[in-house]
Amino acid sequence: MKQHIEALTQYLVAFITGLVQSGVKDVVISPGSRSTPLALLFAEHRELQTYINIDERSAAFFALGLAKSSNKPVVLLCTSGTAAANFFPAVVEANLSRVPLIVLTADRPHELRDVGAPQAIDQLHLYGNHVRWFSEMALPEESVSAVKYAKTAAIRAVKEATSLMKGPVHLNFPLREPLIPQLEPYPFQEEPTSRMVEAGSLQISNKSAKKIVDAWQKVEKGIIICGQIDEQGFPQAVQNLAKKLGFPILADPLSQVRSSQQVENFVIDSYDAILKATLEMEQLKPELIIRFGGSPVSKPLSLYIKKYDNIPQYIIDSGEGWRDPQNTSTMMIYSNEVSFCDQITNLLPSPKESKWQDMWMELDNRTKDIISSQMKLESELEEGKAVYELINLLPMQSTVFVGNSMPIRDFDTFFHKNEKDICIMANRGANGIDGVVSTALGASIYKRPMFLVIGDLSFFHDLNGLLLAKLHKLNITIIVLNNDGGGIFSYLPQSAEEKHFEVLFGTPTGLNYEHAVKMYHGHYTKVLDWQGYAIAIQEALSHEGLNVIEVPTNRDKNHRAHKALWDLVSREIQSFLQDVQ
Amino acid sequence: MKQHIEALTQYLVAFITGLVQSGVKDVVISPGSRSTPLALLFAEHRELQTYINIDERSAAFFALGLAKSSNKPVVLLCTSGTAAANFFPAVVEANLSRVPLIVLTADRPHELRDVGAPQAIDQLHLYGNHVRWFSEMALPEESVSAVKYAKTAAIRAVKEATSLMKGPVHLNFPLREPLIPQLEPYPFQEEPTSRMVEAGSLQISNKSAKKIVDAWQKVEKGIIICGQIDEQGFPQAVQNLAKKLGFPILADPLSQVRSSQQVENFVIDSYDAILKATLEMEQLKPELIIRFGGSPVSKPLSLYIKKYDNIPQYIIDSGEGWRDPQNTSTMMIYSNEVSFCDQITNLLPSPKESKWQDMWMELDNRTKDIISSQMKLESELEEGKAVYELINLLPMQSTVFVGNSMPIRDFDTFFHKNEKDICIMANRGANGIDGVVSTALGASIYKRPMFLVIGDLSFFHDLNGLLLAKLHKLNITIIVLNNDGGGIFSYLPQSAEEKHFEVLFGTPTGLNYEHAVKMYHGHYTKVLDWQGYAIAIQEALSHEGLNVIEVPTNRDKNHRAHKALWDLVSREIQSFLQDVQ
Repeated sequence: MKQHIEALTQYLVAFITGLVQSGVKDVVISPGSRSTPLALLFAEHRELQTYINIDERSAAFFALGLAKSSNKPVVLLCTSGTAAANFFPAVVEANLSRVPLIVLTADRPHELRDVGAPQAIDQLHLYGNHVRWFSEMALPEESVSAVKYAKTAAIRAVKEATSLMKGPVHLNFPLREPLIPQLEPYPFQEEPTSRMVEAGSLQISNKSAKKIVDAWQKVEKGIIICGQIDEQGFPQAVQNLAKKLGFPILADPLSQVRSSQQVENFVIDSYDAILKATLEMEQLKPELIIRFGGSPVSKPLSLYIKKYDNIPQYIIDSGEGWRDPQNTSTMMIYSNEVSFCDQITNLLPSPKESKWQDMWMELDNRTKDIISSQMKLESELEEGKAVYELINLLPMQSTVFVGNSMPIRDFDTFFHKNEKDICIMANRGANGIDGVVSTALGASIYKRPMFLVIGDLSFFHDLNGLLLAKLHKLNITIIVLNNDGGGIFSYLPQSAEEKHFEVLFGTPTGLNYEHAVKMYHGHYTKVLDWQGYAIAIQEALSHEGLNVIEVPTNRDKNHRAHKALWDLVSREIQSFLQDVQ
Repeated sequence: MKQHIEALTQYLVAFITGLVQSGVKDVVISPGSRSTPLALLFAEHRELQTYINIDERSAAFFALGLAKSSNKPVVLLCTSGTAAANFFPAVVEANLSRVPLIVLTADRPHELRDVGAPQAIDQLHLYGNHVRWFSEMALPEESVSAVKYAKTAAIRAVKEATSLMKGPVHLNFPLREPLIPQLEPYPFQEEPTSRMVEAGSLQISNKSAKKIVDAWQKVEKGIIICGQIDEQGFPQAVQNLAKKLGFPILADPLSQVRSSQQVENFVIDSYDAILKATLEMEQLKPELIIRFGGSPVSKPLSLYIKKYDNIPQYIIDSGEGWRDPQNTSTMMIYSNEVSFCDQITNLLPSPKESKWQDMWMELDNRTKDIISSQMKLESELEEGKAVYELINLLPMQSTVFVGNSMPIRDFDTFFHKNEKDICIMANRGANGIDGVVSTALGASIYKRPMFLVIGDLSFFHDLNGLLLAKLHKLNITIIVLNNDGGGIFSYLPQSAEEKHFEVLFGTPTGLNYEHAVKMYHGHYTKVLDWQGYAIAIQEALSHEGLNVIEVPTNRDKNHRAHKALWDLVSREIQSFLQDVQ
C-alpha cells in the first residue's frame, strides 16, 4: 500500500512537473473520483492556478477560452465515463480553431474495462481524429524509468499541442485504488535540469520570396483578405505589405486588423455590403487575391473568392493547413504570416500610388456613410445598431467575445475600424452556438474588460457556464440580443416554409433570463431604448462580477432593417460604379 | 434545380418510410440549417411525433429516455458541426445501457470537408466504437436503386440498433444546397410491400439446460442476483425459478423484481446492509451464484461476488455481452433471460424447503426492522429517509427515475419491496450524473406519473433539460435532494484531505434553484420537514406540468445518519449470525 502511494505520487508529480516546465499555468478540473490523485496534486502545486467546473462541457469551453486568451496550453481534467464525452464539443472546436488543450482523462485500469464495471467506457481514442495526439499512459510504477517516462509524456503532450498547427491532445490515465497521493511534505521540487522544446516557425526561402515579389508587383488590381488570425504583430505587418503593393485589405473582424491602434486607411471593413451589391458587376474584378487566416465570416466575400477562380490566389498559412473551401487557391504558402509579410515588404520598392486602392476606399466611405445615417435614423431596438453603437460605447483596449450565428455577422457588417485597440474573439473553428458563455468567461481571466455579445439561443445553450462567473467572481458584461429564437433562419430559404418554420427553426423559448441571472448572483438590466442601452453599458463598467444586459429585439424587424439597408447600399454603390466606368 | 429537389425528396422520403415501417414513432430534432430537409420531412410525416430541443446534449438524453420507456428505437437528428459532438454523452450511455437510438447527422458534402468550410467537422465515425453501426450515406440521387438503397439503409439501421445487444447507430448524411424538399402533395404514400426484419432471441439447447439443472439441484446454498434488466415477464420468471431452487434473490432496485405486483417473500432487498456487516464472516458463504442483468449498484454485493471466486458463478445474458467486472464467472450463458428461467424451472422438480432461504429472509426482516425504526426516529430532513418515505407516498404504478451517485445508492438501501408495481429507472450504462433530467423527461412521455429523484449537482448539470418540460408541457415531479455539492465524496477516502476537499470535491454551488424553476414556468416547493415533504408530493400529483420539490439536506448529517444505521445493523446481524452458528 505504501509502495502504491509512493509510486502513484512520484509518477504523477513527474508528469505535472513536465507540464509546468513546458509553460502550463492553468488547470481546469471537473470533480470526480478516479481523477482524485491528479486533482489533488494540481491543486497542491504552488505555481498552478486551478478552476473547478462541475459541468464538463462548460469546463472544456472555459479551458478553451483560457488557452485562446493566454496563448498558452491549458490542462483540462476529468474522471472516467461520460464526463470525458462532455469535453467533446470543445475538443472539436479547439482542433479546428487551433487552440492548445491538454485533455487528461482518468480511467479504470485494464482489468475493469469492457466488463460492465461502473463509469467505465472505452476512452482510447475517445476524440478520434479531433486531437493532434492521443496517448494511453502506463499505470503508475515506482522506477526511475517510469518517472522519466511520465515527465517526458507531459513535455511531449505540450509539444504536440503547440506544434505548427496547434490543437488539443488527449492523455488517458488508468489508475488503481487507493487514489490518494502523498501531499506532505510538499511533493514538488525545483529541478535543476529540464528538457525543453524550442519550436521553430515556417519560413520560405529568399529565392521563393523574390519570385512572389516579381509576380505581385506587376499586378495593379490585387486584394488582400484577412480572416481570423492571432499572430502578434500581424495587423502592422500586413498593412506595411498592402501599402507597398497598393492593394486594399478586406479585414474580417477576427483578423484584429480593424482594431489595431494604427489603422491605415486602405483597410476596408464594409466589403460585406459592397460585395453583396456588386457580385454581378465586373468593376471590382481583381487580378490577384492574397489570403491570410481562417475563412472570413462574410458570405458575399466567399462568393467573390469563388467567382474569380481563374486568377492567381495565394493562401499563406503558418499551420500547414488546407483552408480553401472555395477550392480556388493557385498557391499555398506555408510560412509564418508575420515573417512572410516582412520578407515580401522588404523586397518591394517604395509604395505605389493606386487608383484601385482609392476606388475601394471611396466605396468603403460611401457605404459606411449610408450605414451611419441609417443607424442614426433607427429608433427601435435592433441588432445591427446594437453592435454599431458598441464602437463608441466600449472602453479602449477592451475585448469583445462575439457569439456565432447572427452576432458575428452583425460584427462583420457593423463593427467598423477604430483606434481603440479592441480585441475581437469568437469560436470560429466549428462556428457552434454551444459553449460560448464558458469560452468568454475563460478568456476573461486574461482579457479585461470583457464583453460578450450573444444571441438568446446561444446564451441558453451554455447557461450552465455562468456558474464559473459566480464561483470565481469573474468580471464580464454579457449583452444578450434576445429575438426569442433562431434569428438566422429568417435569412434562409426555409423561412418560406410557413407550416413548420416557427416550430423547427423559429424555436421561441419564451424564457425570462432575469431568473437565471439572479440565480448566478449577476446584475441584470433589460434595455428599453437606445439611451438605456448606452447607460446600461456605462453602468456595467462600474459593477464588478457578472452583468447581463438584455436587448429585446424582433426577428422580423431585424430582418427587415437589414434588408432595407442592403437595398440602400446597393443602389448607391451600383450607381457610383456605373459612373466610374 | 427541380431535379435536385426531386432527388432530395424521393431519397429522404424513402429513408423515412423505411424507419416508420421498422417501427419508429418518435423523432427528436435539434434545429439547424444543413439538416433542414430531414427535419421538414419528419415534421410532415403524419405518423411520427417530433420533439424539438435546442441543446443537443439534452436532446440526445431526451431521446434516450423515450427509447428506454417505449422499448422502441428513437430517431435523433442534428445539423453539422459541434451539434453532433453534443450528442456524444448520451450515445455513450445508450451504448452501455443497450438502448436503441438512430442518430442522424447532416453533413457538408465531400468537397466542403477539411478545407476550412464553416460548421464542417470530421463526422465520419464521430462516435468511434460507441455505436453498433456507422454508415456514411450516399448523396441523394434520383434513381430507383438510390431510393431503394435509402430505404434499406433505414431498415438496416433499425435492425443494427435493435439487435441482440441493442444500442445506438449513426448515419451521416452529406447534403447539398438547396436544402428544401417538396412537401406538397403529401410526399409519403402507403407502400403495399415492405421489407421487414423478424429478429430471434437466444435460447440454449435442452441438453445444455438439463446439465445446468443437474448441477444446480444438488446445491443447497445458492444465490440469485438480479441487476438492471428490462425484460417483460422477468420478475415472475426469476421468482418461479428461485422458488423451485430454494435460493434467495438479491434484487437490485433496477431489476424491477422488488416492485412487481407479486413479490415472493424470498426477494431480499436489504443485502447492501447485510453484506456490509458480514463480509468478513463465513456464515453467508454460498456454493453457487447465478447472475442476471447489469452490475448491481451495491458495493458490498460486488465484494461478496468477488470474495467467492472459487465457487461456480453463472451469468445469463441475452445480449451476448461480458458483464463480469469481478472476473469470477465460471460459465457465461447466452440466452434470453425469461426463456432461460422458464426452461430451467420446467425441468426442476417441485419447490424445496430451504433453511438457507429462510435464514436470508430472517436476516432481511431483522435488517429492515432496524431501518424502519431508525427511519421513524429521524426527525431532521435526511436523504435516506426521503427515499424510504417514497414507498408510501408514491401512487400505484408510478415510475421513479433515479439519479446517479447517491440517490441510486439510497434507493438500493431504502426503497424496499412493495406491491405497488412501481417501475424504477436510471442511467446505469456509464452511471453519469449528466443528462438525467432530460432522460427522465423523455421517459415521462410513456411512463406516467413520473417522479425524478436527483441530487443537486446532477440537477444542475442538466438544468437545460427543463426547457422541454416547458415547451412540450410535460408532467413530472422532480425531487431534488440538495446537499449543496458532491455528497458521495464524503464516503470516499479523499474526505480526509481537508486542505483541498471542499474546493475539489465538496464543490458547493450555493445556487437557489427556485429561480431556474420559475424561468421554466414550473411549480417550486422547498420542504422544511417530513410533514411538508408528504404534503408536497401529494400536491404535486394535482399540479400539471413541471413540479420541483427541493429537500435541503446536509452532507455531514447524511453521512453520519448512514453510518449510525450501518453500525446498528452490523451489531444486530453479527450477533444473530453468531447465534445461528
